[in-house]
Amino acid sequence: MISQKMMQLGKKRSTIREIFEYAKIRKAKIGDDKVFDFSIGNPSVPAPKCINDKLTFLLKGDSVALHGYTSAQGDKQTRHAIATHAKKTQGADIDEELIYMTMGASAALSITFHAICSSAEDEFIVFAPHFPEYKVFIESSGGKMIVSQSDRDTLMPDFDALEGQLNKNTKAVIINTPNNPTGVIYPESVIKRLSKLLKDKCKEFSTQIFLVTDEPYRELVYDDRKVPYVTNYYDNTIVCYSFSKVLSLPGERIGYISVCPKMKNATDVYAAVCGAGRSLGYVCCASLFQKMIPLVIGKCADLSIYKRNRDLLYDSLINMGYNCIHPDGAFYLFMQTPEEDAFAFCEQAKKYELLMVPSNDFGYEGFVRIAYCVTTKQIESALPAFEKLAVQYGLQPKQQKT
Amino acid sequence: MISQKMMQLGKKRSTIREIFEYAKIRKAKIGDDKVFDFSIGNPSVPAPKCINDKLTFLLKGDSVALHGYTSAQGDKQTRHAIATHAKKTQGADIDEELIYMTMGASAALSITFHAICSSAEDEFIVFAPHFPEYKVFIESSGGKMIVSQSDRDTLMPDFDALEGQLNKNTKAVIINTPNNPTGVIYPESVIKRLSKLLKDKCKEFSTQIFLVTDEPYRELVYDDRKVPYVTNYYDNTIVCYSFSKVLSLPGERIGYISVCPKMKNATDVYAAVCGAGRSLGYVCCASLFQKMIPLVIGKCADLSIYKRNRDLLYDSLINMGYNCIHPDGAFYLFMQTPEEDAFAFCEQAKKYELLMVPSNDFGYEGFVRIAYCVTTKQIESALPAFEKLAVQYGLQPKQQKT
Repeated sequence: MISQKMMQLGKKRSTIREIFEYAKIRKAKIGDDKVFDFSIGNPSVPAPKCINDKLTFLLKGDSVALHGYTSAQGDKQTRHAIATHAKKTQGADIDEELIYMTMGASAALSITFHAICSSAEDEFIVFAPHFPEYKVFIESSGGKMIVSQSDRDTLMPDFDALEGQLNKNTKAVIINTPNNPTGVIYPESVIKRLSKLLKDKCKEFSTQIFLVTDEPYRELVYDDRKVPYVTNYYDNTIVCYSFSKVLSLPGERIGYISVCPKMKNATDVYAAVCGAGRSLGYVCCASLFQKMIPLVIGKCADLSIYKRNRDLLYDSLINMGYNCIHPDGAFYLFMQTPEEDAFAFCEQAKKYELLMVPSNDFGYEGFVRIAYCVTTKQIESALPAFEKLAVQYGLQPKQQKT
Repeated sequence: MISQKMMQLGKKRSTIREIFEYAKIRKAKIGDDKVFDFSIGNPSVPAPKCINDKLTFLLKGDSVALHGYTSAQGDKQTRHAIATHAKKTQGADIDEELIYMTMGASAALSITFHAICSSAEDEFIVFAPHFPEYKVFIESSGGKMIVSQSDRDTLMPDFDALEGQLNKNTKAVIINTPNNPTGVIYPESVIKRLSKLLKDKCKEFSTQIFLVTDEPYRELVYDDRKVPYVTNYYDNTIVCYSFSKVLSLPGERIGYISVCPKMKNATDVYAAVCGAGRSLGYVCCASLFQKMIPLVIGKCADLSIYKRNRDLLYDSLINMGYNCIHPDGAFYLFMQTPEEDAFAFCEQAKKYELLMVPSNDFGYEGFVRIAYCVTTKQIESALPAFEKLAVQYGLQPKQQKT
């Protein structure tokens, strides 16, 4: 007997991964440029040039110091640089002694949930549509995932529904803004309302409800939209951040957990984070990439490409008659499917070599996620296919923009 | 309420870490060269030059491909290179499709235990003295650690004791050879006897007992000693390997799990490994370091320095009258304490600025671990201090070697 749960998790690939594998086979068959794979959130924009320059520079230094263990919570200079930058740019409540470097946001989430989950009754509320792996990480920590459906028109939290779900077992509420899979950003009014509600409920239940904010897309915003910094509104905030997308190095796994210093038991929560990291086998975050951070903090991949892609794709799909949520950030577009069954729609789309992820994977029905972190050329080439699909469904083209 | 267990794990530093922190403070006070810190297994030998050369070379390539996600189990070329090398050099039973790249050996162990632990009754047998974090990783997976005391003279498994401990709940036996903290290598006769015993017990209980072999020191051996490749003797073997020590890059976290292809349920076990990695938040192993592996596999840091250190330290301590286990591998020397209480001995040693780890941390009494992965100069400078300590304890110097 081995762990059946782990075996199932290992065998059952995510839908996204399955589509990705299908794309590989299909591309081999008919040619790379004939298959329009919009399934994976793998940045297509190269890392800013400074990344490889600074890494090369570091590799000229003392090898023992460069490649040696850092402290488990992370290199002190790295944590200092992160805290200084967040204070300067966001007015963030952040303390370098409460930052724990992690191998990306997934590790940050898994470690955080393990740190705060204290009972099998603990409930973690996520807003659908949501990142599918939340369920895996929450259940791995021993807690229960509770899905709160977002408002269908705005994709903001449905506060009435949420209020009904909060109870004395609520351990945390998880937000992800800019959002995967919708690209939606929660404005300050929403963060304020959410904070107020959670404060009231902490008081009512005499509990501590954490607000876990999953932020791999913080800097990926367009048209000067602002992403409120959550610690400025709610003390029981734990930030899970990743450099994967802003620096276009998702495979290198670097990010962090920041426990809000205003939290009354911040040092205990931080200790639990360190303990959870230790118990899961995270010794330290890759030393070379940690040491790179102070040299590149604040730098960003060329987001103008994503913006161009978004504008081209969104405008084109709207004009073809599709209903789409306008994405203000991240690199995903959430499009309503012309038939209710998103799986069936995706199968139809495959006929035109269009590969998208049905929203069911994100705990939501009747949409697809289109990852536009691809080349602009791929979008241009795919538009005729989207058009044929629109015609097949009898969508009414809107008047072209001038 | 947060997880009290995780909080305690985060707050209670390991003894090794405490000594390390003491050393820092002490060095700041009296000078770096006056404090003889033998507490930490952080390689002092630089990574082979090819490491930084190949990393620099890779950084000139396509950034998107270089820094992008690899598949969760690891880059295919990396796994291919590892399997090919192990087959060629060890005649290993290894299959690249059953290799899962991990962030070092700690991650490999934690993931492995999560993959195979299926019940709170599951028992994991470790041989004392043992790496302290085994307990943390085993308990994190939900299992129980059972300590089997090694033979006091040879530090080989005590097979009578072990046989009495094996039962239908035994999920795995963990070995670590070359060993931390003793430097002992299990010869082929021991691996054969262990394999035979485990095969018999699998049959007797109709269970599958895994042999988990923790191998961060596989290549760190002296005087042409051989480290048997365990899959060649026992089918239910899971290898947990790390490149940390052989390539002197412990902070970069790169290693792997290899499930023995001869295991009857190898693909299920491998799936559980993949599932466990996923559920703990390990998305993939740092892409840059994965891609480096095929370019440097088989390379090794300059071990002659460790050998010189070992010879100097071992011979000197023996001559001073200390009893030591002769280390054939790794970079640790296990020395019997002249008084029973290893903690008390370490306190006495501190008077001479000698910092060593009491064996109690490794589940063993009456010894200290001396990590000799330091500069040869540090050992030379520390010898007079060891001598004074020997005199204080009234040890009889042996006749000097000629």
